[in-house]
Amino acid sequence: MTTSIPQRNSEFSAPTVLVDRSRVENNVQAMFQRARRAGVHFRPHFKTHQSPEVGAWMRAMGVRAITVSSVAMAEGFVAAGWSDLTLALPAYPAMLGRVAALLDRARIGLLVDHPEAAQALVAHPALRAASEAAGRPLSVWIKLDAGYGRAGVRWDDAARFAAVVEALDAPWIRREGILAHSGHTYGARSAAEIASIHACCLERLVPLRARWSPQFADGKLRISVGDTPTCSVLEDFGPVDEIRPGNFVFYDLSQVQIGACAPEEISACVLCPVIGKDEARHRLILHGGAVHLSKDRLEQDDASVSFGQLAARPYDGSWQLPDPQRSLVSLSQEHGIAQLTEQTMQDYRIGDFVQVFPVHSCLACDLHAVYRTTDGEELSRVR
Amino acid sequence: MTTSIPQRNSEFSAPTVLVDRSRVENNVQAMFQRARRAGVHFRPHFKTHQSPEVGAWMRAMGVRAITVSSVAMAEGFVAAGWSDLTLALPAYPAMLGRVAALLDRARIGLLVDHPEAAQALVAHPALRAASEAAGRPLSVWIKLDAGYGRAGVRWDDAARFAAVVEALDAPWIRREGILAHSGHTYGARSAAEIASIHACCLERLVPLRARWSPQFADGKLRISVGDTPTCSVLEDFGPVDEIRPGNFVFYDLSQVQIGACAPEEISACVLCPVIGKDEARHRLILHGGAVHLSKDRLEQDDASVSFGQLAARPYDGSWQLPDPQRSLVSLSQEHGIAQLTEQTMQDYRIGDFVQVFPVHSCLACDLHAVYRTTDGEELSRVR
Repeated sequence: MTTSIPQRNSEFSAPTVLVDRSRVENNVQAMFQRARRAGVHFRPHFKTHQSPEVGAWMRAMGVRAITVSSVAMAEGFVAAGWSDLTLALPAYPAMLGRVAALLDRARIGLLVDHPEAAQALVAHPALRAASEAAGRPLSVWIKLDAGYGRAGVRWDDAARFAAVVEALDAPWIRREGILAHSGHTYGARSAAEIASIHACCLERLVPLRARWSPQFADGKLRISVGDTPTCSVLEDFGPVDEIRPGNFVFYDLSQVQIGACAPEEISACVLCPVIGKDEARHRLILHGGAVHLSKDRLEQDDASVSFGQLAARPYDGSWQLPDPQRSLVSLSQEHGIAQLTEQTMQDYRIGDFVQVFPVHSCLACDLHAVYRTTDGEELSRVR
Repeated sequence: MTTSIPQRNSEFSAPTVLVDRSRVENNVQAMFQRARRAGVHFRPHFKTHQSPEVGAWMRAMGVRAITVSSVAMAEGFVAAGWSDLTLALPAYPAMLGRVAALLDRARIGLLVDHPEAAQALVAHPALRAASEAAGRPLSVWIKLDAGYGRAGVRWDDAARFAAVVEALDAPWIRREGILAHSGHTYGARSAAEIASIHACCLERLVPLRARWSPQFADGKLRISVGDTPTCSVLEDFGPVDEIRPGNFVFYDLSQVQIGACAPEEISACVLCPVIGKDEARHRLILHGGAVHLSKDRLEQDDASVSFGQLAARPYDGSWQLPDPQRSLVSLSQEHGIAQLTEQTMQDYRIGDFVQVFPVHSCLACDLHAVYRTTDGEELSRVR
């Protein structure tokens, strides 16, 4: 009698994020070259990988400026040696003391989108003292809502924009420009649709430059945009100064659905052990639940919902692609259920580890304290 | 000019799980007494809190046996001094070495639901050696599917049940009984509906006892059941030997919807800072997204979807209840959007910390490395 663990699996004993470094580097290379061709500054968002080691790969490729989305992430990447960050979350008073403590080692650009927040920022004594001690003004961006409808000053709310600009009036504050995130590209299903969202965004942002540039540093209002779909499919970003894509490092099934990447470009998955088989209903039970993959859902064109896709055979050390015919149809805290067929059920045994491709790699990776590369390297995460 | 941070908030600088210890202890006390009245063994599931400190509160109240759902959780709680655990996830070969390493300090009951898994378990040399060295047989439960349809031997699949029983044939293995989880009570909306699911479950499980008891330890097939809705509303569990509820320690909005608890019994929430206000649409933007609350959804009776509910005023050190009129209507990675009214918008300022009650406390708490109690105690989590 033998157990059903293939040899290569012996290094894994629990669900584990698996990262293919060469695919990551190809994704970074492609995006960095795209930014260079378009003449825009490249400030990738690190919220997807959150890993100092992945950051180090990107630094080796020439990346010098990054985006983060929490003060904890800023602390982690400053500790890892990064010195030029934008903290792309509207600043709130209780985080400012922690930001101030980083300014001796890094420039941290902050966001505001409300006069109340701008006033609190300007009135924060520790932030001011730290900026002055660092000998450089604090960069502040005004977060703009160019149509996504989540956060930011609405592009047509001139009164609020003026109030924020006015509140940001201090010699130690440097008004950088406006920052937008077109998250509604995630609803797009073609490059043309993405291009039209970007065009609409520019139509709303560019007039602000003409009107407000004199109030910004060096007489120029900069424009920073940043979603992965837009940055993955456009070659010309128009009068944009900076792009901040994040998800592209790993990509995922959502991005495939949008048309922002090919399945071959996905560079992270979760290796999950098969823990059960329901031969009668052709279902595989995986130790791979909401705590490993997140509950993000892919609403498919046939109206069914998927929580992930499996590779077509157990992991044997060579990377495989997601198979849309092998979908996770249900997730609970620790369990995932894959609906297969009588035939594809034969491809797996209990104990096999299978690559499960998450719907949304940012949320799935956030659930894991460490990742492993296909080369066996362990990757840590900032907390 | 002043910032808008109320005095009490100064201890928080980021989204934080807040636990009310007295509510936790009331929940544990009530469930433990219910188990005693019903004459069933109490083996609470620790997957919801995952915290050694919360475990210590429960130990002080008399709890001695626990349930966990991953080998990492088993390792964490054995390290914290627990010595009687059931690992309620179908056992897979690659985890057995780690289980074996715990058997000198703890009894670990395992689950199997497939002949392949049972064979791999019986053939595992390290597990056998560790059991024999510990001088006590290894407890194994057969996971039963009594109608939920997730994992387990279907109650009416006699051939598979017999094959699993037969495979578990070794002098160092102790066949304990059958273990079921009626997860479909989460779709219930009344105590009567929950009672009828439990009755149906018993109707399917009890005949197995008559048929199979001679094959189980001491000639008795034990029955263990375990969902929070059933355990919260029934007083009589029938011929059940053990209950394993987990969520009841914290409860949450899902359990309120099911009718398993009152809003007053919820004992955990996530304190989130207000980072923006959209006065035109009466929306509050919180730093409280999928990485703080999980993307679990509450599908409400009016067909709308909620990702959480806010307390009716900022946190000032006194616990408040969730207000169904203040719902999170959208979540992205770091942001949550609450839909309020022109009037209720007035209750919050940027920088306020607000109690956000999650839909599913198990998944929300799993996203945080530490929690804080309302008394200021820090609670750690096993990993």
